[in-house]
Amino acid sequence: MSPFPPPPAADLQADFPFDYAAHVAGGRRMGRLPESAQRPRVAVIGAGGSGLVAAYELLRAGGRPVVYEAERSADGPGGRRLGGRMHSCRLEQEDSAVVELGCMRFPTSAALLHQYGDTFGVRFDPFRENYAPATPLTVLDIDGHQYPAREIDDLHDLNDDFREAHTRWRAALTRVGLFQLQRDIAARETAAVRRRWQEVVTRFEPWSFYRFLRDPEGAGLTHDQARVLGTAGVGPAAWDVFFDLSVVEILRLLLCTEGGTQLFARDGISRLAEGFWAHRTTDPQGRGCSLEAVNEGVLRPAVVALDVEPEASRGVVVHSEDGRSERFAAAVFTPQLRLLETGVRLRSTTTGTPVLGPRVWRAVRRLHYFQSAKTALVVHRPFWEKTSMDGVTLTDRLPRASYTIDYGPARGPGGRQGVLDLSFTWAHDAMKIGPSTLEERTALFLRDLADIHPDMATELRAQARTGQAVTISWENQKNFRGLCRFSRPGDHTYQRDLFAHFMKDFAGAPAVPGEPPNALFLAGDDTSWSPGWLNHALASGLNAAWGVLRQLGARRDPDNPGPGDLWHHPDYHPLSAP
Amino acid sequence: MSPFPPPPAADLQADFPFDYAAHVAGGRRMGRLPESAQRPRVAVIGAGGSGLVAAYELLRAGGRPVVYEAERSADGPGGRRLGGRMHSCRLEQEDSAVVELGCMRFPTSAALLHQYGDTFGVRFDPFRENYAPATPLTVLDIDGHQYPAREIDDLHDLNDDFREAHTRWRAALTRVGLFQLQRDIAARETAAVRRRWQEVVTRFEPWSFYRFLRDPEGAGLTHDQARVLGTAGVGPAAWDVFFDLSVVEILRLLLCTEGGTQLFARDGISRLAEGFWAHRTTDPQGRGCSLEAVNEGVLRPAVVALDVEPEASRGVVVHSEDGRSERFAAAVFTPQLRLLETGVRLRSTTTGTPVLGPRVWRAVRRLHYFQSAKTALVVHRPFWEKTSMDGVTLTDRLPRASYTIDYGPARGPGGRQGVLDLSFTWAHDAMKIGPSTLEERTALFLRDLADIHPDMATELRAQARTGQAVTISWENQKNFRGLCRFSRPGDHTYQRDLFAHFMKDFAGAPAVPGEPPNALFLAGDDTSWSPGWLNHALASGLNAAWGVLRQLGARRDPDNPGPGDLWHHPDYHPLSAP
Repeated sequence: MSPFPPPPAADLQADFPFDYAAHVAGGRRMGRLPESAQRPRVAVIGAGGSGLVAAYELLRAGGRPVVYEAERSADGPGGRRLGGRMHSCRLEQEDSAVVELGCMRFPTSAALLHQYGDTFGVRFDPFRENYAPATPLTVLDIDGHQYPAREIDDLHDLNDDFREAHTRWRAALTRVGLFQLQRDIAARETAAVRRRWQEVVTRFEPWSFYRFLRDPEGAGLTHDQARVLGTAGVGPAAWDVFFDLSVVEILRLLLCTEGGTQLFARDGISRLAEGFWAHRTTDPQGRGCSLEAVNEGVLRPAVVALDVEPEASRGVVVHSEDGRSERFAAAVFTPQLRLLETGVRLRSTTTGTPVLGPRVWRAVRRLHYFQSAKTALVVHRPFWEKTSMDGVTLTDRLPRASYTIDYGPARGPGGRQGVLDLSFTWAHDAMKIGPSTLEERTALFLRDLADIHPDMATELRAQARTGQAVTISWENQKNFRGLCRFSRPGDHTYQRDLFAHFMKDFAGAPAVPGEPPNALFLAGDDTSWSPGWLNHALASGLNAAWGVLRQLGARRDPDNPGPGDLWHHPDYHPLSAP
Repeated sequence: MSPFPPPPAADLQADFPFDYAAHVAGGRRMGRLPESAQRPRVAVIGAGGSGLVAAYELLRAGGRPVVYEAERSADGPGGRRLGGRMHSCRLEQEDSAVVELGCMRFPTSAALLHQYGDTFGVRFDPFRENYAPATPLTVLDIDGHQYPAREIDDLHDLNDDFREAHTRWRAALTRVGLFQLQRDIAARETAAVRRRWQEVVTRFEPWSFYRFLRDPEGAGLTHDQARVLGTAGVGPAAWDVFFDLSVVEILRLLLCTEGGTQLFARDGISRLAEGFWAHRTTDPQGRGCSLEAVNEGVLRPAVVALDVEPEASRGVVVHSEDGRSERFAAAVFTPQLRLLETGVRLRSTTTGTPVLGPRVWRAVRRLHYFQSAKTALVVHRPFWEKTSMDGVTLTDRLPRASYTIDYGPARGPGGRQGVLDLSFTWAHDAMKIGPSTLEERTALFLRDLADIHPDMATELRAQARTGQAVTISWENQKNFRGLCRFSRPGDHTYQRDLFAHFMKDFAGAPAVPGEPPNALFLAGDDTSWSPGWLNHALASGLNAAWGVLRQLGARRDPDNPGPGDLWHHPDYHPLSAP
């Protein structure tokens, strides 16, 4: 579209452009806890990305994190599953193929994630995203017609309406300043980022994505153009289910993906979780240590209640489902916050002093979650090579988005190397097949894919007979109850308050008005500015770790300020809702 | 708010102000099929409101409807459950108490419904709606504080912010012309209705409810005022989960409720379904008949596929799960349309001639459904009398809305008469407890209700021990997959096309461009202008019956035009999307 190279995908978030990767790069520690006979014990609830990174950095700062996890797994430490929504499913040991039931693609811009990945030896390769250079073919199936494309601009030649819609959409993004924001973030012009982002949030936070697409002051599309563009994908896969979201949430997603490439983890992203758990690191005194070792190789079971003391110095008592209760100096709570209403009971030890103030409760109760379903078929060979299925299929039919992934040579005899994601859906689309069994889902998706790729119908039936299918609906998982939060118009205040929770009153006054200063810290991508990305979940874990370290009186390196140290900096201080 | 009496709730829909009740009042028939030895057989798929009313009126016109139903019930005809989302659950024969798992409250404006109710002897009483005259107390619980109110204006004295929000909201409705529309509908000024409604749709269809609440050209509220108003309820219960919907959908809901009263069925609304099934009526020759009799007392089992002939005169072959296949002169399909993607296969008998055209498929695929969950406790006595629970509790906590219903003296010794709806939720709120068991749901809701009504905590625990709980999540029901459609901004085209489907090409050209003229007719509230109301589901059944009768060459009474006969009338012809 332009003779100039596109700006790089943003590695920092516009709402709080703190460089988390740099903060912990090259063996840097977030702080050093006072040396004592007894290291302070910190409960970390949830062994997903945010919990594990918080635990890992607390360990490196001289704390003793104790990790709890509700999900079960026969193979996991203590019979519990590491990883949360890093949930790689390898059906047989011989398979190289891994089904990513949770997060699946990781933008190159995810600097913090890739830095830890490098430390732990997690290997990434290009994911075959729609219209990506690594993708031989993207087939758009809409209204019963198929449009093959190498890159999205190829669709311009097939349909004038699409050309106009796509051109207007890109022009609107330029007008909003998306690409300039990316350039400013790359150049670390944080003052410019703030100025521009404030304009965007003030003007567009109450706008839905759909309104932005339709309004003459946005992209100015017709309803039908928005429909087609939504199916063709202006980001990963079919975005028409995103129409209700705040357009600011869409811009956040695009900031960290446009101009970048998506990757997948060759051995499954659960490897990253195993890295946090098993990697030998050092404490501030240079002694070797690992999360696995301090936890004696065991994840503790599900937490049922937290008794939180009004005085932060008295800590938190954690009650787990095995009947055990233990007092900790602090606790980091990382599961989806919906669990605070439906799973884990928060109790104050003192009547009249709540654990969370009214504003944070409001945010917890009113967060909007996306549902998501995925059904994958594990097959021996990448049978789709050189066919119309060699890449991605986007469709307005039930499967919505289908991907093909080749994991390379099997790990053992008879092992399988191919994964055909029959369907990966969100929100309304995921709910369509909620009550369907694995067999029903597989049959429905295969039928539609065979209709879209008639040359592959016989082969698909054959693969269905020999392959093995797997499915998940995240909303039906009781420890998750949804894929992730996504913000609707009006949710900014809730996001801001959840993001600010880790600051407690460390900046002189409660960062969230009315919030009590106890030793419970929320983390997880519900508390991040842009959910659905592991990188941002990790950043939320570092926020909570910063809060815990501050609470426990850790010494910090004045040359390496942490996220909370920059709270009052005018380029960082989170914007209020318009 | 005004010295003048409020306008009555509208008994006609603004989008198509046809008087369905008058059309079939006083023993009127929708048409008379030519007398023949063999009455034309029509398959009716789904024994919910729209299917039963279509079958009933086709029977009265001289057809022979054969009804299929997928839901099972040990007590139902042929082991199938009558009623669809009319789903009244009486736990024991001795109980007077009935848990309405599906539709629960029925506005007085629902003229068509009440007309059939009178014919079948269904008894209605005032439902204890929030702030209704029949409701001793509505307790609004928000941010941990409780505000008791008799009527909604009582909340003005408790909170200035609420006073302003509510006043602005009512003023915005006046400006939009909601109350004038009600008056015009009551006066049958259909030209005025059309003119005003066209303005509303043109201006506001792309607006979400949230945008309308916030925008200075709507109600002009702050985010926080919208939040509080959403919890307090500007229609039935907590409306903040409606924020994403098109504001036009909200106006449709308010048109038929504001100024009216909500009723409940004393013996359960399933009685209405039983009425359609068992009531002895007459055919055009005056011979006695009933749906039960022509179906030999049996509902046929689930339909798995429909083979639709391109020529309407060749009809439709219905395949049911018992392996039976039968050709019918026409078929009426009434289940949630999501089933067309996930349950019932539509097949054309001729390649190249689809069963549904591209526009109707678009609408089917892109409809937005609401999830919904209800959990009720059946108790012996209305123990809440003269307590803070004697009415409705609206809360921002997990239960969101709790109702109390007294069904009067039990039907037998030991029978129970009280129903405490612990929680009735929609959309995001319903999804919070999706994976929770009945026991978990009950415990969570009772805990929150006990916190809101501390004086009732002991009593609630006692009632939980002796009462019996029931729950449902409609999105988990495989024959429904959601409570009902609700339209988002941009859905107008889909609604219009689904509503128009019954017209086929009877008006000279396809009412939906590209739609083939076969003998399959869609009905059900997915095809109505305002879903979620039984009255409108019934009207959709009459539309389909009109189409079938037209298709089969029925004679119509020129003095009693049916919905399709007024298609081209300028006050009726459905508006196109803006």
